[in-house]
Parts: sequence; C-alpha cells; structure tokens
Amino acid sequence: MNEQGMPYMISNIQGLISKFKSQEIHVERSVDVLVIGSGPGGYVAAIRAAQLGFKTAVAERAETGGICLNWGCIPTKSLLKSVQALHYVRHAADYGVRIRGAATPGISEIVIRSRKVAADMREGVAFLLKKNKVELIPGTAVFNADKSVTVTSANGDQQTLRAKHTIIATGARANSLPFAPIDGKKIIGYREALVPVVSPRSMAVIGSGAIGCELAWFFHHIGTEVTLIETMEAIAPLEDADVSAQLSRSFRKAGIKVMTSARVVRADTSGAGCTLIIRTKKGEEKLCATVALSATGITANIENIGLEDAGVALERGRIKVDEYFRTNVEGVYAIGDVIATPALAHVASAEAVVCVEHFAGRPVSPIDYDNIPSCMYTTPETASVGLTEKAAREKGYKIRIGKFPFTASGKAATAGNKEGFAKLIFNADDDTLLGAHLIGDNVTEMIAGLIIARRLRATARDITCAIHPHPSMSEAIMEAAANTHGAMINCFS
Amino acid sequence: MNEQGMPYMISNIQGLISKFKSQEIHVERSVDVLVIGSGPGGYVAAIRAAQLGFKTAVAERAETGGICLNWGCIPTKSLLKSVQALHYVRHAADYGVRIRGAATPGISEIVIRSRKVAADMREGVAFLLKKNKVELIPGTAVFNADKSVTVTSANGDQQTLRAKHTIIATGARANSLPFAPIDGKKIIGYREALVPVVSPRSMAVIGSGAIGCELAWFFHHIGTEVTLIETMEAIAPLEDADVSAQLSRSFRKAGIKVMTSARVVRADTSGAGCTLIIRTKKGEEKLCATVALSATGITANIENIGLEDAGVALERGRIKVDEYFRTNVEGVYAIGDVIATPALAHVASAEAVVCVEHFAGRPVSPIDYDNIPSCMYTTPETASVGLTEKAAREKGYKIRIGKFPFTASGKAATAGNKEGFAKLIFNADDDTLLGAHLIGDNVTEMIAGLIIARRLRATARDITCAIHPHPSMSEAIMEAAANTHGAMINCFS
Repeated sequence: MNEQGMPYMISNIQGLISKFKSQEIHVERSVDVLVIGSGPGGYVAAIRAAQLGFKTAVAERAETGGICLNWGCIPTKSLLKSVQALHYVRHAADYGVRIRGAATPGISEIVIRSRKVAADMREGVAFLLKKNKVELIPGTAVFNADKSVTVTSANGDQQTLRAKHTIIATGARANSLPFAPIDGKKIIGYREALVPVVSPRSMAVIGSGAIGCELAWFFHHIGTEVTLIETMEAIAPLEDADVSAQLSRSFRKAGIKVMTSARVVRADTSGAGCTLIIRTKKGEEKLCATVALSATGITANIENIGLEDAGVALERGRIKVDEYFRTNVEGVYAIGDVIATPALAHVASAEAVVCVEHFAGRPVSPIDYDNIPSCMYTTPETASVGLTEKAAREKGYKIRIGKFPFTASGKAATAGNKEGFAKLIFNADDDTLLGAHLIGDNVTEMIAGLIIARRLRATARDITCAIHPHPSMSEAIMEAAANTHGAMINCFS
Repeated sequence: MNEQGMPYMISNIQGLISKFKSQEIHVERSVDVLVIGSGPGGYVAAIRAAQLGFKTAVAERAETGGICLNWGCIPTKSLLKSVQALHYVRHAADYGVRIRGAATPGISEIVIRSRKVAADMREGVAFLLKKNKVELIPGTAVFNADKSVTVTSANGDQQTLRAKHTIIATGARANSLPFAPIDGKKIIGYREALVPVVSPRSMAVIGSGAIGCELAWFFHHIGTEVTLIETMEAIAPLEDADVSAQLSRSFRKAGIKVMTSARVVRADTSGAGCTLIIRTKKGEEKLCATVALSATGITANIENIGLEDAGVALERGRIKVDEYFRTNVEGVYAIGDVIATPALAHVASAEAVVCVEHFAGRPVSPIDYDNIPSCMYTTPETASVGLTEKAAREKGYKIRIGKFPFTASGKAATAGNKEGFAKLIFNADDDTLLGAHLIGDNVTEMIAGLIIARRLRATARDITCAIHPHPSMSEAIMEAAANTHGAMINCFS
C-alpha cells in the first residue's frame, strides 16, 4: 500500500545500500515501535501503538498515507464520484431537472479534485500521527543485520533506530507483464491512469479485478472507448458468478467491450498506439488501442529493505508471518500487502490493530479471514463477504440460496436504478450465513451489516426478523433471507 | 397507511351504512382470511396468508398499495431523488463536470416522475396479489355485528364476506389542526404537497417529523422560501438530540428557516396567503406564507368501519391488540397505523407477517419494538434504532457513547459531503448496543446492520472487530464502536 520498492527508485536505493554497508552502523536512538511504511497498515499500527503508550516512529519514503490514500482507494473513489455526478447531469431530464446544452467532463478539473481529496486526506493522516505523538521520519528504511533499521532521507541524511517492535508495512506495487512492461505512456499502470491529461480515444484494460473494473468504468464515462480483457471466464472473477454476470451485462449495456477467457500474449508499442495480441477461444485476435492499462495484480515490496540481512523469512514472494503477524525474527512483524493475506486496505488496518494489541499484551483474537468484505465502486457497485455459491458447494456445504432483485425494490424504483440484486447463501444444516453477494446502488454501504451478521453467526431467520427500514435498498437483504424459507413477499418472479 | 376513513368520504360512507343497516345481511361467501386495506400492512398480510395456504381476499377502497406507496414513502422518495439530481447538476462544477447555463427544477416533470414511480409500484402490488392468488376487492369494507364484512363498491354493489380471520389494516390519515383545518389550498396536507403545480413563493411547514422535514427539504430545493415550525425544543424531536441539532444546522445552512419551541395557535386564510400566529418563547409572532403545510401527525382510520357493531375495543383512539395483533373479538386482528405501535410502513409489514404466521400456527416471536429503525431521507439523511442518549440515561443505564464524524471519513471526502456522524450508545455493564443514531449520506442504508447487531446483542467489541470495507461511510460505525474503548484511529478531534 505504500511505495517501498517501487521500480523507479531501485537504482537509488541500491546505491544508498552499498554506501551504507561500507560504513559502521551507529545506533543513534531507540523507540518502542518502528513502523516501516505509512499506508493503511502502517499508519494505523503506529497510531494504535502510540495509543497504547509505546514511543512510536513511522518511516515513509514517499507520500504519507501510502498508496491507498494517494494512488489507490481514495483518488479512484473521487474520480468515480465525478463520473457519477456527470451521469446525473447527463440524465437530469429523467429526474425532471431542466438544463441547457450538453454536459462534458472537465478532465483537468476532475483530476485536480481527486488530487485535492487525496492531499487533504494525506494532511489528515499527518495530523493524526502528530496528534497521537507518532514521529514521522521521511526516508527509505533498510534493515541491518542486528534488526536495527537505518532510514535514509532524500538528501542522504541517515539515522539508525533500534526498536523493540518493528513492523514491516511496505505494501505493494503494480505488476508489470513481462511482455508488456509499464512504460507510463502506451502501457500504463494505475498511477498514470489516475492523472490523465485528456481522455484517450481508446483503452485496453488488461485485468478485471477492482482496479481494472473501476478504471474501465471511469474512462468509459469520460469518453474513452474501453475494452476490458480478462483471462478467466468472467470479469471480476473472484466474485460470485451471478455478480460477475450482472456486472458484465451492466458494463456491456453501458457500452464497454468485455472480453473474457482472453489472454494478452504480446504487446507492440512501436506504432501510433498499443497493439495487443490476445489469445481467445476463437484463436488470436489483434486489438489496437491508444493506450493499454495494466491491471493484473500487485507485487509485494520486499526488495531492498534488508530482509535478507535481518534474516526475515519469505514464502512465495511474501513475508511469512503467524496469526499475530510475527515473522520468524523476534520483534519483527509484517502486515498488509507484504504478507499473503488479501491485499485490501481494511485488511491491512485490521492486521495493524491485531499485531500491535497482541504484542502489547491486550486480549485479541486472530482475524477471521473468511469474513473480509470486498467492494467495487463501479455502477452498479459490488460488495461481498464470505463464500461464493461455487466455493460453498466445493467445501461440501448443503446450502440454501436467497436472492432478491432490485427490480422489485421500491427504493431502487424511486432512485431510478433497479440494476442488481442481493444474494445470500446459508448453511442448510444450521441456517447460518455463509456468504453475501450484493450488486447495485449503495451496496458498498450495505455489506457492513452482513459482516457483523456473519461474525455473530446470524441465521436466515435472524436477518428476516430484523425489521429493515422502508423504503431502502437494504430491504432486499431481509427479503433474500426470507426467500430461503419461502417467505419472500415482494418478489415478482 | 390506506384511505379508509378519509374525511372527504365520510358522508358517503355514512349514507351507505344507513342504507345497509336497514337491509337483511346476506353472507354471500366465505374466505379464510379477509384483509381490510392494502397498504404495507394489508398487502403483506394478504400475501403471507396466501403463501401459507389460506384462501385470502383484500378489500381496498382507494388505490392498491395504500398511502405509503401512493401518497407516502414512495412518491416522497421520488421527489427527493429529483432534488438530489438537481443538487448534483447545480454543483456539477464542484465535481469537475462542465455545463452551460443554470439548472431549473421542472415541477411538472418532477411530479409526473413521482406519480409514475408510484403507479408502477401500485401495479407491482396488484401483480403480487394476483400472483399469490389473493383476491382484490375494490370497495369500502364495514363490519357487521356477526363479524362478517360487507364491501360496497364505488357503484354501490355489495358483497358480504365471512372470514375465519379478518385483519383490520385501514391505516391512518393526516391530522388537521382544529384552528387550521386542511382546506387543500392555503392549508395543505401531504397529499396536496406531493403534487404541486408550481413552487409556492413561501411555505410554513407545521411539524418537523419525517413528513415535515422531508417536504420542507423538497420545497426548499424547488425554490420555495420554507419556514419549519416545531413545538418541541428541537426539530425531528424523536431523534437523538445530537442528530436533531445537526439536522437543524444543515437545514439552516441550506437556507431553511427553523423555528423551535414554537406553537401555531391561530391561522388566518382570509387574505392573499396564510397568516399564522405562532407562540414562541419571545411572545407571539406573525408569519405570512403563500401556503401552510400541516404535518402534525396522523389519526387512525377507525371510524365508519363498523368496529362498534362488531364490538372491537379501542384504546386512546386506536384499536386495542395483544402481542399477536388479536383484538378482543376472536378472529379479528388489527395491524399498522390503526394500533398504537410506531406508524411506519416497515412496522406494519412486520406486524402483518407476525399476525398471520401466529394464527397459522407457525413458530413466531412477538416483535421487539425497541429495535425498530426510523429514517428521514433529507440531505443529510438520518437513521436511528434503539435508545437515544436521553432515553438510555432516563432508563438508568450506565452508558458508553462512541461518536465518529464524517469529516474524518475518506469516503465522505471523496463524495464531497462530510456532514454528519455516527453515534452509538452501549450499555457500559455488558458492552451491548443500546442505540444507534446516524446522520449523513446514505445512512438509511447503513442502519440495517445495526438492527441485526442489536437483535444479536452485539457488543462494541463485536462491531469494532467486524472488518468494515475501506473506503466506506460505514467505517464510521466501526470507529464509533472502537471509540468507546479508546481505540478510535481516524478521528481528528
């Protein structure tokens, strides 16, 4: 989630390391807790540690707040909000609002707004660190063999810190396909995609996870002809198959071209734009686009931070930790995108709290990774938690499925958007909730209740009997639960 | 929730009753379940009864779906959605969207949209009744002394039905102040307010419950100079005091004039508009407005439906029932706004299900009236469940309060609306949730999870440990819960 290890910095860091290794290590000072990286894992760990009385410092080599806040969740949501507003303006007449002339997206205004929102949040995190008396040390942190950490600032100043507890929260960076490396011009990553100067005439989005889908939606709305390319059989392949299918329908209806079971095997950027060779079931296809967006996942930032020197063990490209985020080296912990748990900001923050509270001796339970929400802020939005139908069947559960379409929702009708549904999966043996899969307006705010429900082992009956407000989209959840007992009221089908 | 007993019909009904009483009663046919009124209580009762195998009929003397659908929740939400779209258009530049010229509300288009949404929902309910094989009998239903019910259609045709179970779901109508009766012109009720032809130059809204607040917000946005008048010390007086205060600030900031501790004591409609004499702490004030909207609560529709003949007992103007909605007369039940429970559509629907399932012999528990959500769809929205801070203290609870402002929410920042907060009240003795009070964007979709949480006796720790998605407004709930244990991360104050 933060910038440790971004490729464009590697040469510089390596130079510093060489310089540094030739010198004697001087431990200049001590803290109780040192956090490396100030993303949603790192800054939360630092604040929680400070709250619990630890003298805490956090080293950050780039922007305070890490990738999530500066180049991830926050700026994308701002861009998506702008195109939501654009949608309202374009459809003003549908709501009875009279305007003259056509609306156009002001690319520079939209981007400036997004950067301003990120900047405000960045200042907010800096303020929070200060308020909690966490020392923010700008610079690149590298472990020494004795577990101390040397932080080198941009101007070459160095300080070495010894900490009782050192938390690695260095995050991750965008993957680059070997045959289509991100050049920042014709093949771009999420960073470049967040600050467009114009809307490209056409764009090939490679990968349909949250980043790919959200940016495809954004660029489509600012006038780019978008093709979304996914190697799996469905877009958003980690979602329940019904959600993927609905999102695909919504994207296609909006005018986004969707290619599934399609693997990019070659890229040629020698011409005017970017030409991709894509292997599909029908054979090889050629796609020419002004620009290609590489959104094929992330790589943990584990290089050049001295993990080898400190003896921190890895496992399949991530740092190996136990359920309390302890590495094999005593007093060294790792949280967030550098470990093999879901690469989500809210997971990193939760890991931060559990990690710190555990070494502080507070009563704390390990995280239940079966109860992690996952959201996409497209239109319709998607939000899910727990097992998909396929996963539940594969695990051998006898299941009962309740589904309620927003076409039958009064609130959706008043809002003028009836796309999507709520799909709940219950264990037929004990009626408890196994998974929830929502797609539609505002579902990213509706999933929270189902996370609490799963945590408390809520049954379909519990959810049915919890009186939901009318009219609301959330009534769909109550109806979907009722559906599993043949008691759904408002369904047309 | 439906139209039984609306004042303008009384003379007609009374004529029919007189005519009817002079004749011999012919029981023409039998059903298992007869429901009087097709509002959110009645139609849900009818569908659930039919689902459970009962031969069911529902009598409705006005529009299918009752007040909620035709003249309440649904059309107001449609009007409010239109002014939300208007807001986006007016603030397009804030989101980076370029438009030419100013946006204006098309009153007729906005109203037509609202009526269309209501009409579609009405057809939907008619379809649901048909699909579930519920017979819809258009006409005015009146009990006979032998508990049979005679339904008289608009053209005077009569049929008498005998049912094993008769459910009274006749709803309520707007109160009319004795000294300021609704004349439909200068003093209007919600019905007239939902179908304006123009935006009145000025409007005095008497009463600041959900109807008053929502319509005040709507008329303000379509260009009416609105004064909201409340007899209690705060607007939305049933809400937590902090929510009332925030809503008041938001309304005033938007330009709505808010008068509290202000009682309308006289109305004069003899001049050009409507002049109200209002008693305040400072003495009597005079307010001249083009029109006054009377939004001072509702009166149950218990007149002229033969309750006296059937011997159905009343209590303070409502029908007396037990926890399974049985009246004192065997086989006669009452649900929704005609009984002394909260006058909310979702309450009526829940009562419908419990009533029917109970007489059907299904295992069912009484409704927990301490766990009923209440929402207002203004901007900011409000949503609450359970005890207010004041009520919790009055009941003698030792409480812990957690509050998180949306000014510190990343999602709120991206959306460009940081008004409001989440306030949670926990029992300090066992850490369980006593009440939740939300005000802000989308909170009407966020309250559902807290209803489930209360039902399952969730603790602050449960809510803190349920990993909420980032970025979302719902994170405020998790943070507010954490706040009660000194573990709130993202708060600036």
